[in-house]
Amino acid sequence: MRICLVILFASWSVIIQAQTVILPNVMPQPKSFIQGQGKFLLNSKFSISVKAPAQDTFLFAAINRMFIILARRTGLYFHQESITPSAINPSAGLIITSSQKAVADIGQDESYHINISPNHIELTAANIIGAMHGIETLLQLLDFDSEGAFFPVVTIDDAPKFAWRGLMIDVSRHFIPLDNIKRNIDAMAAVKLNVLHLHLTDAQGFRVESKVFPGLQNKGSNGKYYTQTEIRDLVRYATARGIIIVPEFDMPGHSNSWFAAYPELASAPGPYEAGQPLKFERKENEVLTVQKVMQVVQNSPFPTFDPTKESVYTFLDKFLAEMADLFPSPYIHIGGDENNGVAWKINPAIAAFMQKNKIANPHELQVYFIQRVAQLAKKHKKQVVGWEEVLTKNLSKDVVVQVWSPMGVSGIAEKSIAAGNRTIFSKNLYLDLFMPAYIHYQVELPVGIIGGEAAQWTEICDEETIEPRMWPRAAAIAEIFWSPSMENDIPAMYQRLFHVSALLDENGLQHISNYKKMIRRFARNENSTAAEKLIDVLTPIKGYKRLFAMFSLPEAASYSTAVYTRAADMAQVDPPLKWEFRVQVEKFLATKNPEAEQWLKHQLLAWRDNDQQLQSLFRSSSQAKEISAHSGNLSLLSAAALNVMDQTKSGILSDSTSTKNNFLLIQNAKTTDGEVELSVLPELEALITGKLTALPKQFPFF
Amino acid sequence: MRICLVILFASWSVIIQAQTVILPNVMPQPKSFIQGQGKFLLNSKFSISVKAPAQDTFLFAAINRMFIILARRTGLYFHQESITPSAINPSAGLIITSSQKAVADIGQDESYHINISPNHIELTAANIIGAMHGIETLLQLLDFDSEGAFFPVVTIDDAPKFAWRGLMIDVSRHFIPLDNIKRNIDAMAAVKLNVLHLHLTDAQGFRVESKVFPGLQNKGSNGKYYTQTEIRDLVRYATARGIIIVPEFDMPGHSNSWFAAYPELASAPGPYEAGQPLKFERKENEVLTVQKVMQVVQNSPFPTFDPTKESVYTFLDKFLAEMADLFPSPYIHIGGDENNGVAWKINPAIAAFMQKNKIANPHELQVYFIQRVAQLAKKHKKQVVGWEEVLTKNLSKDVVVQVWSPMGVSGIAEKSIAAGNRTIFSKNLYLDLFMPAYIHYQVELPVGIIGGEAAQWTEICDEETIEPRMWPRAAAIAEIFWSPSMENDIPAMYQRLFHVSALLDENGLQHISNYKKMIRRFARNENSTAAEKLIDVLTPIKGYKRLFAMFSLPEAASYSTAVYTRAADMAQVDPPLKWEFRVQVEKFLATKNPEAEQWLKHQLLAWRDNDQQLQSLFRSSSQAKEISAHSGNLSLLSAAALNVMDQTKSGILSDSTSTKNNFLLIQNAKTTDGEVELSVLPELEALITGKLTALPKQFPFF
Repeated sequence: MRICLVILFASWSVIIQAQTVILPNVMPQPKSFIQGQGKFLLNSKFSISVKAPAQDTFLFAAINRMFIILARRTGLYFHQESITPSAINPSAGLIITSSQKAVADIGQDESYHINISPNHIELTAANIIGAMHGIETLLQLLDFDSEGAFFPVVTIDDAPKFAWRGLMIDVSRHFIPLDNIKRNIDAMAAVKLNVLHLHLTDAQGFRVESKVFPGLQNKGSNGKYYTQTEIRDLVRYATARGIIIVPEFDMPGHSNSWFAAYPELASAPGPYEAGQPLKFERKENEVLTVQKVMQVVQNSPFPTFDPTKESVYTFLDKFLAEMADLFPSPYIHIGGDENNGVAWKINPAIAAFMQKNKIANPHELQVYFIQRVAQLAKKHKKQVVGWEEVLTKNLSKDVVVQVWSPMGVSGIAEKSIAAGNRTIFSKNLYLDLFMPAYIHYQVELPVGIIGGEAAQWTEICDEETIEPRMWPRAAAIAEIFWSPSMENDIPAMYQRLFHVSALLDENGLQHISNYKKMIRRFARNENSTAAEKLIDVLTPIKGYKRLFAMFSLPEAASYSTAVYTRAADMAQVDPPLKWEFRVQVEKFLATKNPEAEQWLKHQLLAWRDNDQQLQSLFRSSSQAKEISAHSGNLSLLSAAALNVMDQTKSGILSDSTSTKNNFLLIQNAKTTDGEVELSVLPELEALITGKLTALPKQFPFF
Repeated sequence: MRICLVILFASWSVIIQAQTVILPNVMPQPKSFIQGQGKFLLNSKFSISVKAPAQDTFLFAAINRMFIILARRTGLYFHQESITPSAINPSAGLIITSSQKAVADIGQDESYHINISPNHIELTAANIIGAMHGIETLLQLLDFDSEGAFFPVVTIDDAPKFAWRGLMIDVSRHFIPLDNIKRNIDAMAAVKLNVLHLHLTDAQGFRVESKVFPGLQNKGSNGKYYTQTEIRDLVRYATARGIIIVPEFDMPGHSNSWFAAYPELASAPGPYEAGQPLKFERKENEVLTVQKVMQVVQNSPFPTFDPTKESVYTFLDKFLAEMADLFPSPYIHIGGDENNGVAWKINPAIAAFMQKNKIANPHELQVYFIQRVAQLAKKHKKQVVGWEEVLTKNLSKDVVVQVWSPMGVSGIAEKSIAAGNRTIFSKNLYLDLFMPAYIHYQVELPVGIIGGEAAQWTEICDEETIEPRMWPRAAAIAEIFWSPSMENDIPAMYQRLFHVSALLDENGLQHISNYKKMIRRFARNENSTAAEKLIDVLTPIKGYKRLFAMFSLPEAASYSTAVYTRAADMAQVDPPLKWEFRVQVEKFLATKNPEAEQWLKHQLLAWRDNDQQLQSLFRSSSQAKEISAHSGNLSLLSAAALNVMDQTKSGILSDSTSTKNNFLLIQNAKTTDGEVELSVLPELEALITGKLTALPKQFPFF
């Protein structure tokens, strides 16, 4: 047995409580494992067979996908082309045993057992969901040495911590095409997420075809929506990968797009059109403050369903009946978030209804609406999920509550659990707020929840940027949903994260390809290497700052057709180079390690000389120009760091003038030009000052 | 007026007859143009309006795609979000005028006129097909300088040389998913190709759903085929881009996949399964010779339709009726190629039928079959296309003949034209034979043809490699189909080709992204920069050598599920760096130009030192190991070239020993290890010997 030693450095200590033994390359980490000696070598005679009383075409399809991935990664032409139900081979290298068919629902037995010995691999699971999880683990375990491709000898017993492991994608603000969603489903399956929550409707667009009320998609979208045929195809695709699709129809707020064709559903006469409902009166170039945005958010009469009309419930009954049939998932999400009640307050008929029915305030009226809609959903055999605002004293226990607001009522998850409502946790798991993976990784999930969801809202991303925006961070969140205990070693977590990220990219996800493609376009295909070198170490500003900055732009920036090609749209939230650089800096500062020193000097020289190569692009491109200060700062700080490293080595003490200059350089580099920051600034500062600051425990939202 | 000066170098002279003035960045070149002074500057107020008596949703959709591409490329947020029929704006920057609706057929008026002045752009076309061509030209014209994005002042009158400008994709040998085909359609539209010929059926797979005969796709494919819903969606997608889809159902040969479910259609009882019909008996590791392959091809009784059974025609009647409805194109392709007649000769019933009906030989029997099928197609209102083998003395004049065989009957195109059959030319336009773009570019198209098709067969490429295999070379072929006179300056042609290639990649095609993604996987995401540096200058061996080498591999290599991840599968047919290097070498040798010298030294140093960085990958990866000799040769030749450059500068004459050594180095580097070649070898040789050899006029097929 081999015990993995984890090397810890001082500055990570803010995060570290204890050491954990980690199975290399695997994310999420399994519940338990024992590593052995030796390996199972892969060659072209590698074969797979299935022992499954309940033969399942989904499992065969998963195995055939595995063959393709193994072939691509190893370059082997396997003699076994594919697996078919008739091809039972007891002497196959890998035998997969699964005794039950799976049901497309959460809360199933997802456990699996893997035993890799030098001559044989066993994968055993209660049902094919578990078997598919095991296949994903095997694919992550595949490794190489001078003898070729192999699986390391190991025994794994695995099962998830939480039943509901979701990813929410907002396809309303920007429509995300079907093949993009499918790539995300493949990536979800690879990291064992099992719920795809599609935010199908919002003010900006109604993204699913209704045959009963075709005006919804025809007038409520810019022509971009999923047809019912496409939805059925998507559901089949997800089901084949053990993933259920939970559709969200957000109401009573966030609902302009419903009213474009059916204004009679709303509490004000309209007319309505799909689009950004936030309108700001402001002077040219005025940047909106948080206060101003919040004031508008809290006091505007946003388009809202009229909860007092019986015709609204008749409409929703028919609509939900249609959607309940289209989406086989046992769950349907009805939103319920961010209704400020203003639209209701100003409608005299609604006021009269409230008085007559002894409804004290808009909040209680929303309870009434949600309960009515939940009853309709129940009638159509669906369990209802709603955002945390639906949690009120009278809420039915059947409703699943999704906790989200970073600024919301404190302890709401605990209240929901105490009230007996199943609870999903998304608080501080919003991917669109540009927080590094390690921040999400440290989110403490409340005891008693049934699971959680990472979420990607799409006000400021489109089909091209959504994959790099979501991945690989979603994989780190997948680990907190799956693994019983978290890793303490953040750099090691990042190492695994970037390993899995590369595999996701190889297998179809476009997050790395799109990042690089966008940089080629940004650099107009001239010297894109230099542009990539710069953007590789930039990172977008965090929290809601970019969203509010967008509200300050001309309206076009918030169109659902707007595209995102600025450095801030490309720059990675977790630049891999930043984390590699940090590890090398720490090693060098701690031990003067000569390899680390060589690595750092090579990198610093490249950064120092890169700025020169971008001058012509800065002259001809305003998008490049807005990040030119960062390029200059990177160059100057790299030169300064090289100087300090040389001086320290020669034993020369730096004089106070150069210390002061360096201090100024560092201060100057703390700019957010172009809504990006120099991600490696703390580490460059460390090389100059000799002291590496600890990672921030959190970042402000505003 | 500005006249473009074209600089010519001596070694291109094999190709050059006369100078032509070229419109920069545009491919295919327009029929005529006049460049002026100045530019139309683009800013966020740029707007587009349409004057079209026949308002067409396809045109509006094309304009909205144009907005997205312009926004991505310029970073501008346009105030005009999108265009709708009601939004007529006489003061818009770009006014598009189109007087007729378009019909989805070839032979329409595709002409357009563009007039760009500093304040206004006019695009006028007879119908929306022409208008869409004009939009593509505008997108290629977009340029940048220190004032920002602009369209140069120019007047263009354009129209195609040939009506039929096609691209054939074989989706049978390897299935190509729908979104991949859609990306190809976008790329086709960008270079003004107008016919997508889908080779939907072949021995290896039946790739379209038949509801009348569902066994065709169910038993004739590995589950990978287009549903009828997907085909209708694809046809709509193509039509919206001015492209017609011509489906091919190959018969009477190439037809195993039909017979898997319906063996009664065949001339032998079966059973049949979809798959590679070529079987070779050979010793282990025996490499098949051309002779051996040809012998098998000419003498094997391949699965073939039985032309003597009336039930076959009844079946085909029903099938063609269904397909005629599914594919609205006026054309249907029925194959007709490579039937050696052996399967017919050995069937006594067929022999009796021939005797009774006075059919002299299998060739005449095939004529009989083709005529019968053509009559069925005609009954269903379709015109028939067939490969050149269908051309016989009795062939109906209605049948369009597609000339293809590089080794076929000479002058067959001329014979077909003389016989009055419309003729399409694909000879020497097969993209899967790895010939450089300049070879295709020099193909002389016979007078009298109605057009041509580039073709991509997929025995040795899959969904991941097909885009880099087809593009950007297909764009050079598009130019020979469209432009009235060809460019003489090959390096300048390549410059435009790579410019357009970058635009295609930016706008969705995956040919560059997949190339780079595959290299990351190949290098296992470690030092992929060094792997890319090597593979950037390799090129696959040309002609049928790789296909025959594949037949020498274990059978798995020819499965329709096989994947292609070797260096030979990634290496580019036209490495951009090779062409850039060649230009610099030529400039340096001709004039000792100091900039060229600096460029070359920088490049040679990088190549010299790259081999060292790949050693660890060569040790752990057999796929990398097979190209290690090229890496070593590149390093040694670069060092030798640097030496010679230094010695020449210092006036030192190289001694005979080093000359001899260099000669040996060059000879050694002429290896085809791993089925790739060092593409920059002639140019490295030139730096060493002082003499650059002319480009080969052709390459052998075997």
